[in-house]
Amino acid sequence: MAWEVFSFIGTAAFAISGALIALEEQYDLFGVYILGMVTAFGGGAIRNVLIGAPVSVLWDQNFLFIVATISILIIFFFSKMLLTHWNRWGTYFDAVGLAAFAIQGAMLAVKYEKSLFAIMVAAVLTGAGGGVVRDVLAGRKPLIFQKDIYAVWAAVAGLLVGLGLHKIDIALYILLIVTTMLRMLSYRFHWRLPQGPK
Amino acid sequence: MAWEVFSFIGTAAFAISGALIALEEQYDLFGVYILGMVTAFGGGAIRNVLIGAPVSVLWDQNFLFIVATISILIIFFFSKMLLTHWNRWGTYFDAVGLAAFAIQGAMLAVKYEKSLFAIMVAAVLTGAGGGVVRDVLAGRKPLIFQKDIYAVWAAVAGLLVGLGLHKIDIALYILLIVTTMLRMLSYRFHWRLPQGPK
Amino acid sequence: MAWEVFSFIGTAAFAISGALIALEEQYDLFGVYILGMVTAFGGGAIRNVLIGAPVSVLWDQNFLFIVATISILIIFFFSKMLLTHWNRWGTYFDAVGLAAFAIQGAMLAVKYEKSLFAIMVAAVLTGAGGGVVRDVLAGRKPLIFQKDIYAVWAAVAGLLVGLGLHKIDIALYILLIVTTMLRMLSYRFHWRLPQGPK
Repeated sequence: MAWEVFSFIGTAAFAISGALIALEEQYDLFGVYILGMVTAFGGGAIRNVLIGAPVSVLWDQNFLFIVATISILIIFFFSKMLLTHWNRWGTYFDAVGLAAFAIQGAMLAVKYEKSLFAIMVAAVLTGAGGGVVRDVLAGRKPLIFQKDIYAVWAAVAGLLVGLGLHKIDIALYILLIVTTMLRMLSYRFHWRLPQGPK
Repeated sequence: MAWEVFSFIGTAAFAISGALIALEEQYDLFGVYILGMVTAFGGGAIRNVLIGAPVSVLWDQNFLFIVATISILIIFFFSKMLLTHWNRWGTYFDAVGLAAFAIQGAMLAVKYEKSLFAIMVAAVLTGAGGGVVRDVLAGRKPLIFQKDIYAVWAAVAGLLVGLGLHKIDIALYILLIVTTMLRMLSYRFHWRLPQGPK
Repeated sequence: MAWEVFSFIGTAAFAISGALIALEEQYDLFGVYILGMVTAFGGGAIRNVLIGAPVSVLWDQNFLFIVATISILIIFFFSKMLLTHWNRWGTYFDAVGLAAFAIQGAMLAVKYEKSLFAIMVAAVLTGAGGGVVRDVLAGRKPLIFQKDIYAVWAAVAGLLVGLGLHKIDIALYILLIVTTMLRMLSYRFHWRLPQGPK
């Protein structure tokens, strides 16, 4: 059950974040649709390829395709009514997607009995992969390399899932909320890791 | 038979379009070769990875490697004699590649008995994938996100193939010509889809 | 034995080259780590996907993960002490990685009994692939498309391995040194291939 919930939340959140960036870049309807879909499904595709899970299962997610499609269409037609400050909203939806997919990717790696390190990598790949593809295709510097703490939260979520949190559904939901909030706070208050020498 | 024809046309057209962009960017001989090859084979590679078809069949296409290599070399050494206005010619060859590979990718998805939605996605991935990789590597905004209608034609071609057109060879050839022309007309007359709110 | 040596050298060299570019771009600690890891393992991942080798073996390289991690951390904390002129050092380490991974990638393709052409492609993909991903993610024009001769040396190394050099370990080590030096000399003295017409 938790798996489906995290897939649902991550897919909708990333589809919206991709669509919002496409709107900012003045893409047309189909461009908005493609960038939303790539963001929603790109991270999972990269994870499956790298983890050795069959990629063809991507195609059996009809429900998620519909979720993403509806999310994108709502944003395309009603974003002006629903949202102001796209840039900020894009970052918030991205934070939700990052957290949900990091946990979901870690759960899959646990199922495949990967090492703790691999579980953390799967969390980062799944959580951040779709956003990286989105940003590269939109010609932007990937969020993952921005100054405010980002992918570390995916790695931490992956670590906690790998240490046993996946056994307790309620703990996973709390982890989702906390991870999302930590990322949002990092963005809001510019929490930063040390940089190298200039 | 139709499969081989579409593979041949798509490979040659995309190899040329990649080589033309590399020439515009002042790449050297090997850079032109690599960008041509990546454009010609990138879309099919992405499609095979995502559709779950074995990627290793890529290597059994010796004939197509030779087709792409000869196409690139002709462009490198004789483009000045053959063409003026590279930019426009690049767009035209890209249109031919888009149409040929969209149809070919949809045919493969039909063979793998995918859903109609997956057939359309395969058409878009195969038709537009190589061009996206080409544009990202050349540091350009992908054609697929430009303002004139582009990938929609690949999706429509995929839809028609999925609805049964793959059974009639002659219909596929007509579809190739019509799809190419629709893309060219979109470029020439700036046909556009609705954009989102500003 | 030679395989392990080349994997070790290539991994360390590319991890360092990725970390150096991330430092130049003022990424934080985790950004430096990610770009280093992507550069070190990206080329091999692309090669495995395209050659049809199982990608999941990537995860059984615990020793190489540690090598890359230590290399990146040393660069992050001590680069100012160890190096001046990052830009030049980045190019040098990239040359070592290019040579080591070109030979290693060609050896794998030989093991899979691929054609001579495929062996050369595997050499270029493995040698240059990680660097291309690194440059795209950092928003730079890929080194492979720069004016000084680059990927040709990987193709030549692949050709020699494919012609039988893989049977003699000592010849492979000499090839590593010669390939690295040819790339460095290309960079230092601006050796160039012919360009197309303007």
